[in-house]
Amino acid sequence: MSDRIVITAGLTGALTRKEHNPAVPYRPEEWAAEVRRCEDAGAAVIAVHFREYDTGKPTVDSTIMREVVDAIHSNCRCLVNLSTGVGIGTPHEERKQPVLQHRPEMASLNPGSINFNLVNWNTGEISMDHTFINPFRDSIEMAGIMKSKKIKPENECFSPSHIENVLWLNKYHKVYDTPLHFGFVFGVAGGMQLNSANLANCLSLIPHDATWVGIGIGPNCFRICEAAIALGGHCRVGLEDNVILNYTTRELSKGSWDQVEQAVELSRLVGRAPATPKEAREIFHLRGEND
Amino acid sequence: MSDRIVITAGLTGALTRKEHNPAVPYRPEEWAAEVRRCEDAGAAVIAVHFREYDTGKPTVDSTIMREVVDAIHSNCRCLVNLSTGVGIGTPHEERKQPVLQHRPEMASLNPGSINFNLVNWNTGEISMDHTFINPFRDSIEMAGIMKSKKIKPENECFSPSHIENVLWLNKYHKVYDTPLHFGFVFGVAGGMQLNSANLANCLSLIPHDATWVGIGIGPNCFRICEAAIALGGHCRVGLEDNVILNYTTRELSKGSWDQVEQAVELSRLVGRAPATPKEAREIFHLRGEND
Amino acid sequence: MSDRIVITAGLTGALTRKEHNPAVPYRPEEWAAEVRRCEDAGAAVIAVHFREYDTGKPTVDSTIMREVVDAIHSNCRCLVNLSTGVGIGTPHEERKQPVLQHRPEMASLNPGSINFNLVNWNTGEISMDHTFINPFRDSIEMAGIMKSKKIKPENECFSPSHIENVLWLNKYHKVYDTPLHFGFVFGVAGGMQLNSANLANCLSLIPHDATWVGIGIGPNCFRICEAAIALGGHCRVGLEDNVILNYTTRELSKGSWDQVEQAVELSRLVGRAPATPKEAREIFHLRGEND
Amino acid sequence: MSDRIVITAGLTGALTRKEHNPAVPYRPEEWAAEVRRCEDAGAAVIAVHFREYDTGKPTVDSTIMREVVDAIHSNCRCLVNLSTGVGIGTPHEERKQPVLQHRPEMASLNPGSINFNLVNWNTGEISMDHTFINPFRDSIEMAGIMKSKKIKPENECFSPSHIENVLWLNKYHKVYDTPLHFGFVFGVAGGMQLNSANLANCLSLIPHDATWVGIGIGPNCFRICEAAIALGGHCRVGLEDNVILNYTTRELSKGSWDQVEQAVELSRLVGRAPATPKEAREIFHLRGEND
Repeated sequence: MSDRIVITAGLTGALTRKEHNPAVPYRPEEWAAEVRRCEDAGAAVIAVHFREYDTGKPTVDSTIMREVVDAIHSNCRCLVNLSTGVGIGTPHEERKQPVLQHRPEMASLNPGSINFNLVNWNTGEISMDHTFINPFRDSIEMAGIMKSKKIKPENECFSPSHIENVLWLNKYHKVYDTPLHFGFVFGVAGGMQLNSANLANCLSLIPHDATWVGIGIGPNCFRICEAAIALGGHCRVGLEDNVILNYTTRELSKGSWDQVEQAVELSRLVGRAPATPKEAREIFHLRGEND
Repeated sequence: MSDRIVITAGLTGALTRKEHNPAVPYRPEEWAAEVRRCEDAGAAVIAVHFREYDTGKPTVDSTIMREVVDAIHSNCRCLVNLSTGVGIGTPHEERKQPVLQHRPEMASLNPGSINFNLVNWNTGEISMDHTFINPFRDSIEMAGIMKSKKIKPENECFSPSHIENVLWLNKYHKVYDTPLHFGFVFGVAGGMQLNSANLANCLSLIPHDATWVGIGIGPNCFRICEAAIALGGHCRVGLEDNVILNYTTRELSKGSWDQVEQAVELSRLVGRAPATPKEAREIFHLRGEND
Repeated sequence: MSDRIVITAGLTGALTRKEHNPAVPYRPEEWAAEVRRCEDAGAAVIAVHFREYDTGKPTVDSTIMREVVDAIHSNCRCLVNLSTGVGIGTPHEERKQPVLQHRPEMASLNPGSINFNLVNWNTGEISMDHTFINPFRDSIEMAGIMKSKKIKPENECFSPSHIENVLWLNKYHKVYDTPLHFGFVFGVAGGMQLNSANLANCLSLIPHDATWVGIGIGPNCFRICEAAIALGGHCRVGLEDNVILNYTTRELSKGSWDQVEQAVELSRLVGRAPATPKEAREIFHLRGEND
Repeated sequence: MSDRIVITAGLTGALTRKEHNPAVPYRPEEWAAEVRRCEDAGAAVIAVHFREYDTGKPTVDSTIMREVVDAIHSNCRCLVNLSTGVGIGTPHEERKQPVLQHRPEMASLNPGSINFNLVNWNTGEISMDHTFINPFRDSIEMAGIMKSKKIKPENECFSPSHIENVLWLNKYHKVYDTPLHFGFVFGVAGGMQLNSANLANCLSLIPHDATWVGIGIGPNCFRICEAAIALGGHCRVGLEDNVILNYTTRELSKGSWDQVEQAVELSRLVGRAPATPKEAREIFHLRGEND
């Protein structure tokens, strides 16, 4: 078990908007301020979904992407992880743009199709009944772009079978640099839920040299964070996944940074120090700083 | 562990045709002959995909469905499990027809979306790059129809998260009669592969009173069959999943019945006798014979 | 997942002495003060190993046992869990005494033999190379005593096979009241280590209505605490298992109570409130207050 | 998954005697005849417990050991795996003798303590209530002898924690040559039982380059055999573990060889050919033939 833990701050996400938490950044100056706070709190990686400045809708507009990336880099040394999920139903051609137009150290990659729903967990009401479609050909193309640019894919697995898709694509189409890196996403309605059976399955399927980050939606966020800390993984917190700082008091997060602070405390308790961006580069086997 | 094992013979499937094995039945008289042999060999359940008599294409034509079901019942006492998967890309409205127009004791139900590909496992070539789309609303409707007619759904899970979909639909939408019954499908490219991690995850997620049948595509067929026998599950064999009788000699099956014979032998070795249709009714908690 | 979490404070243990942490209580007045602090901090259960007042050696001396139990009850409402492990190599006849002479609401029970070593985890030096011997006949007798007095056994499992021993003893010798309750102990050299494979196995083997508490030795203490909180279990902290409050700063615990405070905070973060003694009685299916 | 499967024939065991099955060999000429039949049937490894010629009691008598080993080698090319478990309660000094006095290609090694009972699985009666004691120091000494003579240890794990003992001994005391090799023993009363949770736990804990053989007592023998074949492991059959050839007919085995025949058939069905002794040497990373 690594004694360093890489904490990723996910600041936006496909779904969270200012309506849910006013600290979600849209504009470059908001990004600059928020990433600074996250780095100060202990984050090593910033996960980015771009948003239209006025509406908050997911976008891959070239100007917005450039301005936001510049704002992030201008104000912090954290590594950047650009989402290629973008928004619900965004076509593949648009989803490629972040890694075509930019060369972040990391980017998300979706290696499989899955139900991706919005539901009311009290009533069972289904407000979005969506299938997130990721054919192999799209994953192959996406991974190929990233490999050629030495961008590290974070393979977002919503189910253990997504891990097996990655292994298949890696074996037969050689579209990855190894060691592989995975994000395990728990708590999406339609994807895997957080329990020891799923977690053990995921950890059992990944190669021994792979790295992983635990990701949990809403109330699963700090739960998987605690489990990942305990079991040697890395973690992601922030408004992308979760807008609440404490599930007993129901206090809203003031930003993603206070969730980072919380993750740092949980990690330090068991003797794991938050990795610096430089350490994260090593732990995740990213390309060299000048590469 | 039940000392009886329910052996399902899958005679057709969405994909297998006479080109792959001439014993795949299309016409009523072919069905009648083949189910007789399967029952004699030890099968308790017949899984059915309907085919156009001449072309072998999947169909839900009312006449064909009626003629084939009649042919089956006329010549054997096996329980009938009608597929609601039908064919690749068949729309939901057509997929409902088998359970709307008939009242089999069992029917398949697909509780989740997943990549469902055809690939060459030597070269990695992808000849079909498909997402099998099953939104929650469709599963709810399908399960509702079955519940109202006391048809037992075999929930075909291509990934552990599909089990969790079933549990969610059962909890929030109450569309199942319990105990639940599951089919775990291993070896589809895009779905879960056969290994102890996936198997243990599946068995860990299902309720303690649930029943399950192991299903494996191609070379996985007898492998999951052996594992299911060993671990207390039930099994499915037949041309639907597998056209080869012995993976060392590469001998083609003469029909689904010789695979049933093989499954019986594997089961008897460890002291599990093949269940009769009557016993299968009890083991799977199906409606009463006159219900 | 229960939204309440039962926090057990283990104040002494078989091995921890004042040399390791001066807050380990030996004398009644020390117990009285420490349990008060633990209850105030949020503990619902106090786990007890008795010690000779002067030497700190494990004992089942009748006077000491009585005086300490009285001291605990005089000063707090927490439930009491008496150890029947007592000390390294204590004979069975002595180990029975706590439950023969007393009628606590809970007591530990060791359902299996295992290597139980003390090692240096840096150098591999083995300072104690012990087998903790628990034949079935002893477990049967111990469970029988507890059942007759409605004392709830906490089955201390150092390996998944210990769970299967409990299930066997329960099935064939009916020495338990159900639902069963388990303690999973991670990190003893010779027993199971803390990882998702072991954890998932344990959770998969216990009956669906069973309860469990995660226990970890030394650096595993807060790790399993975090994992148990995340995965719906209960947890034990305190000087019995761990003398350090923070594994980054290496600060010594001031007592067991500051570890309880820490566990409460971790639980509240994910929305789980610490159970009161009364709630713990219900969650663990203990005998009624006046029973 | 290796397409070759190494089939070990265990001819004697610590407990099986002629009373249980007259084909258990005691005398050299019986060994010679039986190993010949096993090799012909497809076995690559012969597992040996020595027996007094007249009484059948486990022994490490030098003359008997020499005569039996000579008899085996004189009549077959199978690899030899000598037990260092010997008999119930045999002291460590005697248990070392097989590997001190001989240099087989393999030998069993017991890396942990465990309850090892004989029970009636119908009534729960316990006829032997034993703890099999294996302190770390004994395992270290045993592994050291084997390493120095390039004898490959088959680490007999009766519980997942035994695997972790091996990993610990390997890491801190460097007493193994890698890749490691494991035997997973299912069905001893007091050890782990055969189910997917235990199996997945074991497979998840072993290093990726390790090899394993599935071993099952009595009715578990063919069950784990089928599961190991399905999941890529190797298997052991023979009178050591099981005296019955078919658990439906209850037919007694005529020897260990007919169980080997059965294992070969099960393997060939799924496309795995029995390894020759030469292939087994490679698969298990044994020392070279002339080494």
